[in-house]
Amino acid sequence: MPFAPSGLITLMTDFGTADPFAGIVSGRILSRSPASRIIDLGHGMPMGRPDLAGFWLGRAWRDFPVGTVHLAVVDPGVGTARRVLLALAEDRLLLAPDNGLLAEALRDCRTARYFAMAADLPGRLGLTQISQTFHGRDLFAPLAAALATGTLAPEDFGPPTTPADPAPLPAPTRDAEGISGEILLADHFGNLFTNIGASLVASCRQPWAIVGTQSLAVRNTYADVPPGAPLALVNAFGVLELAVNGASAATELGLAPGTPLRLVDGLGA
Amino acid sequence: MPFAPSGLITLMTDFGTADPFAGIVSGRILSRSPASRIIDLGHGMPMGRPDLAGFWLGRAWRDFPVGTVHLAVVDPGVGTARRVLLALAEDRLLLAPDNGLLAEALRDCRTARYFAMAADLPGRLGLTQISQTFHGRDLFAPLAAALATGTLAPEDFGPPTTPADPAPLPAPTRDAEGISGEILLADHFGNLFTNIGASLVASCRQPWAIVGTQSLAVRNTYADVPPGAPLALVNAFGVLELAVNGASAATELGLAPGTPLRLVDGLGA
Amino acid sequence: MPFAPSGLITLMTDFGTADPFAGIVSGRILSRSPASRIIDLGHGMPMGRPDLAGFWLGRAWRDFPVGTVHLAVVDPGVGTARRVLLALAEDRLLLAPDNGLLAEALRDCRTARYFAMAADLPGRLGLTQISQTFHGRDLFAPLAAALATGTLAPEDFGPPTTPADPAPLPAPTRDAEGISGEILLADHFGNLFTNIGASLVASCRQPWAIVGTQSLAVRNTYADVPPGAPLALVNAFGVLELAVNGASAATELGLAPGTPLRLVDGLGA
Repeated sequence: MPFAPSGLITLMTDFGTADPFAGIVSGRILSRSPASRIIDLGHGMPMGRPDLAGFWLGRAWRDFPVGTVHLAVVDPGVGTARRVLLALAEDRLLLAPDNGLLAEALRDCRTARYFAMAADLPGRLGLTQISQTFHGRDLFAPLAAALATGTLAPEDFGPPTTPADPAPLPAPTRDAEGISGEILLADHFGNLFTNIGASLVASCRQPWAIVGTQSLAVRNTYADVPPGAPLALVNAFGVLELAVNGASAATELGLAPGTPLRLVDGLGA
Repeated sequence: MPFAPSGLITLMTDFGTADPFAGIVSGRILSRSPASRIIDLGHGMPMGRPDLAGFWLGRAWRDFPVGTVHLAVVDPGVGTARRVLLALAEDRLLLAPDNGLLAEALRDCRTARYFAMAADLPGRLGLTQISQTFHGRDLFAPLAAALATGTLAPEDFGPPTTPADPAPLPAPTRDAEGISGEILLADHFGNLFTNIGASLVASCRQPWAIVGTQSLAVRNTYADVPPGAPLALVNAFGVLELAVNGASAATELGLAPGTPLRLVDGLGA
Repeated sequence: MPFAPSGLITLMTDFGTADPFAGIVSGRILSRSPASRIIDLGHGMPMGRPDLAGFWLGRAWRDFPVGTVHLAVVDPGVGTARRVLLALAEDRLLLAPDNGLLAEALRDCRTARYFAMAADLPGRLGLTQISQTFHGRDLFAPLAAALATGTLAPEDFGPPTTPADPAPLPAPTRDAEGISGEILLADHFGNLFTNIGASLVASCRQPWAIVGTQSLAVRNTYADVPPGAPLALVNAFGVLELAVNGASAATELGLAPGTPLRLVDGLGA
């Protein structure tokens, strides 16, 4: 079944909101696709970290209707020979630089098909002025517009390919005593997301998270401990999270991304 | 007259803009209500402060057309037994956790009707997977979508109720010499909003604000004093404000929310 | 040919995103123009700097379709006698306080026509309650709505005029040995935008930027130097930029807006 665009486009970037970069991308999209509706999925991705943008896009892309075009631009290699990648997954499109972002976003999706932009596509779309430093505006915006209007079918984007995966997020490892993982990121609330997924936690009868000198039983929600107390839980994005009820775990526990942690079974491994 | 949705939905949260939480809520809304239009009323509400979110929503909800659904999620009690509250006020809907947010937002509205979410409503809407920690996505988004499409009438949301009001913002008090109030918040410009309303100021013939060692005549606008000078005025949101012309009063006067102040009549109380 | 509105409105302000000011402006627009679509061009403009907002609007307004109404509110003179200015340029409208913002935005546009708001226009539009401190909500929003619906034609906005230009951004100067300019701003990535335009750079056969003790050859893109190394380039907005590959030039080079720099020709002036 061919891709049927809904006209909805989401934008995820590391452009920030101080400068009008993201708005300018929207303008270029609307100039070519006036009926499109644009949702800002967020412009606060960590600068130059396609892996983390991929993590978040992976937790968000299915929350939008089929027919959505997701455009993600975290592009430290802008102006180099890095490819432009399109993925067709569960009747949605994902468009990004081919720098690991989509490999991470779609790691759990077995049915995605990938296409590498054909060298002559910009010319076919009439894109004659492409800057060296702002492909979000000059290349990705018109590509997203063409895909969202249906002018450009995914199959005409370029040849099938496999995504680049140069620096995947660290995977947890299992040994006789438990599971070793690490903290991936701190969110706006200071909650600490780890790379240990829900199924690993579910494999423990009495799961405990151990980080530094802290041993934290895995609970269901923040209010399962008193205000100000630390806890671990499987969060709404399917990963083990370290948190403090009503406060920032990053601040209160003094922990940062990259810190290792252990998941052990209180009843024995 | 039954509520007639316009398809417009606003979002106000304390989710910040670094992570894609707010965008994900939009995605879930659009998945169930593709024709809705979503306006971000702001995701920078102070974390875990339903009272201040209520203050701001109270200053914003009437600025949108009738038929608007306002969704506000500042929800420190997510995962606990706190109720979900819907208000129907002046042909608009307001949906939020029942934690004081709507009590504050609608304190000046005498005609609002309130409904507490029926326990079986999530099931009736097919919401089978509700996380313990992200009700904005799993519960509030589909509720807002159902209300905005008209699939769900306010009267079918649940039984009539009165809103919880656990920690109302402090009210000003009057004594023989004047009025005692306090600073509620500092805005983006460093202007200091107080809890003293316009009508109290209007009750003084020559209103002066006294804070610490400063006595400030109440003026009409910033330019009524020289650049860099402090002043007081009744601001565009109907409350007494302490400001500095062209600069941040929070910084220049060294004042923070919670600081007490007095309003006195220069001609005598 | 009369202006044909597309229904698209963009917003650019210095309101920030912590408070719901920008959302409230959107609400007031939609209350009068329910079919309008609003794009946030950005609310992080430097506070009270119409010149820099004008710089950015000048780099963004043509990226939107003809028929767009651009509303820009950076308004340190709110409540004073400063005029309200409308520009009609290349089939788009730009609306702002007449404080230099539009003079800067349209400095390169020779065909723009300007109109000063007639004193009786607010009354004709039924605007009876205009606060002294929030014209974005009380005046500019309904004006933008009237222009975007076509209710108000640009020619009926007020008499033709020329824009105020009280404090233009500094212009580069040329002498026998080269060109003197300065750093205008640092963007989200720490890239340093200068006031030296692309044509001046193109006038050098071997352009070098000299700032402090650094001499930087002008390159094509960030990856033309090793990670962490500084460079100069003509950026996607047509100005000479100082950058560091993969890092913040503002931080790494310790340079701030206002710093002077020189552009010289390595082959001699």
